[in-house]
Amino acid sequence: MSKGLDHDTLNENVKKAQYAVRGELYLRASELQKEGKKIIFTNVGNPHALGQKPLTFPRQVVALCQAPFLLDDPNVGLVFPADAIARAKHYLSLTSGGLGAYSDSRGLPGVRKEVAEFIERRDGYPSDPELIYLTDGASKGVMQILNTIIRGQSDGILVPVPQYPLYSAAISLYGGSLVPYYLEETANWGLDVNNLRQSVAEARSRGITVRAMVIINPGNPTDEVYQQNIYQDARPFLSARKVLLDMGLPVSKEVQLVSFHTVSKGYWGECGQRGGYFEMANIPPQTVDEIYKIASISLSPNVPGQIFMGLMVSPPKPGDISYQKYVQESNSVLESLRRRAHIMTNGFNSCRNVVCNFTEGAASNRNAFSGAMYSFPQIRLPPKAIEVAKKAGKVPDVFYCLKLLEATGISTVPGSGFGQKEGVFHLRTTILPAEEDMPAIMESFKKFNDEFMEQYEEHRGYSRM
Amino acid sequence: MSKGLDHDTLNENVKKAQYAVRGELYLRASELQKEGKKIIFTNVGNPHALGQKPLTFPRQVVALCQAPFLLDDPNVGLVFPADAIARAKHYLSLTSGGLGAYSDSRGLPGVRKEVAEFIERRDGYPSDPELIYLTDGASKGVMQILNTIIRGQSDGILVPVPQYPLYSAAISLYGGSLVPYYLEETANWGLDVNNLRQSVAEARSRGITVRAMVIINPGNPTDEVYQQNIYQDARPFLSARKVLLDMGLPVSKEVQLVSFHTVSKGYWGECGQRGGYFEMANIPPQTVDEIYKIASISLSPNVPGQIFMGLMVSPPKPGDISYQKYVQESNSVLESLRRRAHIMTNGFNSCRNVVCNFTEGAASNRNAFSGAMYSFPQIRLPPKAIEVAKKAGKVPDVFYCLKLLEATGISTVPGSGFGQKEGVFHLRTTILPAEEDMPAIMESFKKFNDEFMEQYEEHRGYSRM
Repeated sequence: MSKGLDHDTLNENVKKAQYAVRGELYLRASELQKEGKKIIFTNVGNPHALGQKPLTFPRQVVALCQAPFLLDDPNVGLVFPADAIARAKHYLSLTSGGLGAYSDSRGLPGVRKEVAEFIERRDGYPSDPELIYLTDGASKGVMQILNTIIRGQSDGILVPVPQYPLYSAAISLYGGSLVPYYLEETANWGLDVNNLRQSVAEARSRGITVRAMVIINPGNPTDEVYQQNIYQDARPFLSARKVLLDMGLPVSKEVQLVSFHTVSKGYWGECGQRGGYFEMANIPPQTVDEIYKIASISLSPNVPGQIFMGLMVSPPKPGDISYQKYVQESNSVLESLRRRAHIMTNGFNSCRNVVCNFTEGAASNRNAFSGAMYSFPQIRLPPKAIEVAKKAGKVPDVFYCLKLLEATGISTVPGSGFGQKEGVFHLRTTILPAEEDMPAIMESFKKFNDEFMEQYEEHRGYSRM
Repeated sequence: MSKGLDHDTLNENVKKAQYAVRGELYLRASELQKEGKKIIFTNVGNPHALGQKPLTFPRQVVALCQAPFLLDDPNVGLVFPADAIARAKHYLSLTSGGLGAYSDSRGLPGVRKEVAEFIERRDGYPSDPELIYLTDGASKGVMQILNTIIRGQSDGILVPVPQYPLYSAAISLYGGSLVPYYLEETANWGLDVNNLRQSVAEARSRGITVRAMVIINPGNPTDEVYQQNIYQDARPFLSARKVLLDMGLPVSKEVQLVSFHTVSKGYWGECGQRGGYFEMANIPPQTVDEIYKIASISLSPNVPGQIFMGLMVSPPKPGDISYQKYVQESNSVLESLRRRAHIMTNGFNSCRNVVCNFTEGAASNRNAFSGAMYSFPQIRLPPKAIEVAKKAGKVPDVFYCLKLLEATGISTVPGSGFGQKEGVFHLRTTILPAEEDMPAIMESFKKFNDEFMEQYEEHRGYSRM
């Protein structure tokens, strides 16, 4: 008799869901690491894992919140600055029992207020804390909203391709249908509205009700969660919410919008803390209540992550004791990220059959697929490589990425995990390895790639597409 | 045209799910609080919110992990003991980049190893860290396993009634069917196997495939998460896993079992940190991999919560600098809980038409429904009260609890949220209000209750059932 957790009896949606960022490549990389091979994990944007140091001020504040007895210790001033101590007292006053107490399931009201104030400063429109819910990172928020929307297979969600695999995985898990809309690599991954219309029409002809659309901003597959990674002032970040409200009535009161943010990305990179929020616009109150009810089943998001979110939206101000240090640490991370993006893009473009669109990061082109923390070079695989891969039962870019991993220890994600046009192949890598390691990594990549191409190109004169 | 997040178009399972612990009563209590009324929240086991102080040692360790730069500060020894510093270094060495880095989606391997060692010490059987997954609290783990099992409405999950509403809510959310098995209040909430068989037969006759059974141990609706709250040594906690393995072959290798634990309950009460784990026994490797894959969609449980779990399963040992203080703080919490359980049970039993089974807590009877952090008195509502409630469109115990809330500020959960036999009514309250407040709370309860009974009893001689 088969049992509840036998594989053949499981929820089919659970089995169908694929998550490429931690898929075959990551599992193989973990195996190789266990066998003692040095692995450079560039599969997921996890900056602290690759040596980025945390910003000091938010960590001081959260450490003090964890150890509130220190606030009465006469020696506390020897190891913590006065503004961190004041902030810790502020956040503890927003909780009902410190970090050890469940908060309201939507998050601490005081932190939601700080988020609303941040959004208002950013967009120039008021924001209502009652429509802001804190979450254990942005992914959990995205999953909750998709779960609320999707009723079954005939519900479609428009997702840009290339996409961040969270969307495809969550849509499968909740039993819906992903409706792709393709971005144009030759137009710096821009959106073609006709192409979008065609995707919707095609889905409808298959009996799919298109229920929602995922918008990635800035860049793709980066999310609004990367709004801090814009490296210049000429084209500042513009939120989807601001665009909507700028359009005026009736659109500004009609279009339903849920926007997500997180402490994991930006230059904070506090992934392990799992802090995030989503803000709802034009969502009916009854629906807002249903989302609250579902959030309440798992009681509350983790409270330290909520404090990190509060700190991210209200960092030290000019004149604060910790301001200079905070700005200096932040700039140092951002400038290093930009330098690393340059080294990586130039490195890719120096390789045979590799073309990488990105030049200036999100700074110069908000629609650049590369940018923020990632690079997405196209790998023009020779027909022979494609043929050998298929014989080995592998998607060609998976084949390439596995070979790269075995040869160099560089753990990437094949472009097929994000979606790409038929016959076109990519890989996705983060730009997060330590700056001093970057030249050697790119050299090792080039050596592998050029040998791979040499091996599979039928003749040296193989023409680029 | 209706939109994706309009209420009438939402996922029906989302709308159907009910979660009584934060349901109508909690929402009304929150409203009253906003209006300035003093509310005593006893709806959810949230000890720090009601004044319980966190244990010092784990907080010191996690504070240091949050602020690793302190480890190089010459003054750190003035505010942190040496064993906390050593432990912080230990946990940081288990991460790859500190608390700001995503861990493996199953949790940090080093912490999973500590959990396995704890289970082995507790049960006397080896435990495999590969079968232990860390989670953002136990609820998230329970939800993940139910999501893996449930395929649709004809999949049933056996749940003891009274039940913890997490189960009913999650089963609704995933579209399955709850199959109740009733516990016997007159037998100290014991399990009657014939009754269980009958529930299964009845479900099958309705075309339901019974896929899994929820076991609550010790006590009910407390979970294994309360294993620390056993107040004596004569009948120590016995895990379901130990019982299974004690049965020997073939059963010990056949029955599939997933056990949950958390840092939220026990005497730590670190609810806001969201740390938990589940351990799998006899689950096929392919299924274990599917559960890993789904966990990976939201990247990783929060890392500070994982460290709390590590600390909970490996607290200070005799001889450690912090041992005495840790034991003293732990005992102080446990002893106070026991005293509060006594005050509350005696208080309930002194009220008209109120009967509370609990006398010695989980200590004397592991099947006691009351115990750990909760009390579940039966409220024998007079027929007239039932009639008036029904006219007001309320379930009778909801009616009673709302009146209690309005009169006294005591926020409880009606028994109907947990399930109860037809015509029998309860309320659930935690025993967590501060010990010094407890006599006044019970007095205020008695005053309300006795007046309520006075009002609705048709004649003073109304006989108890």
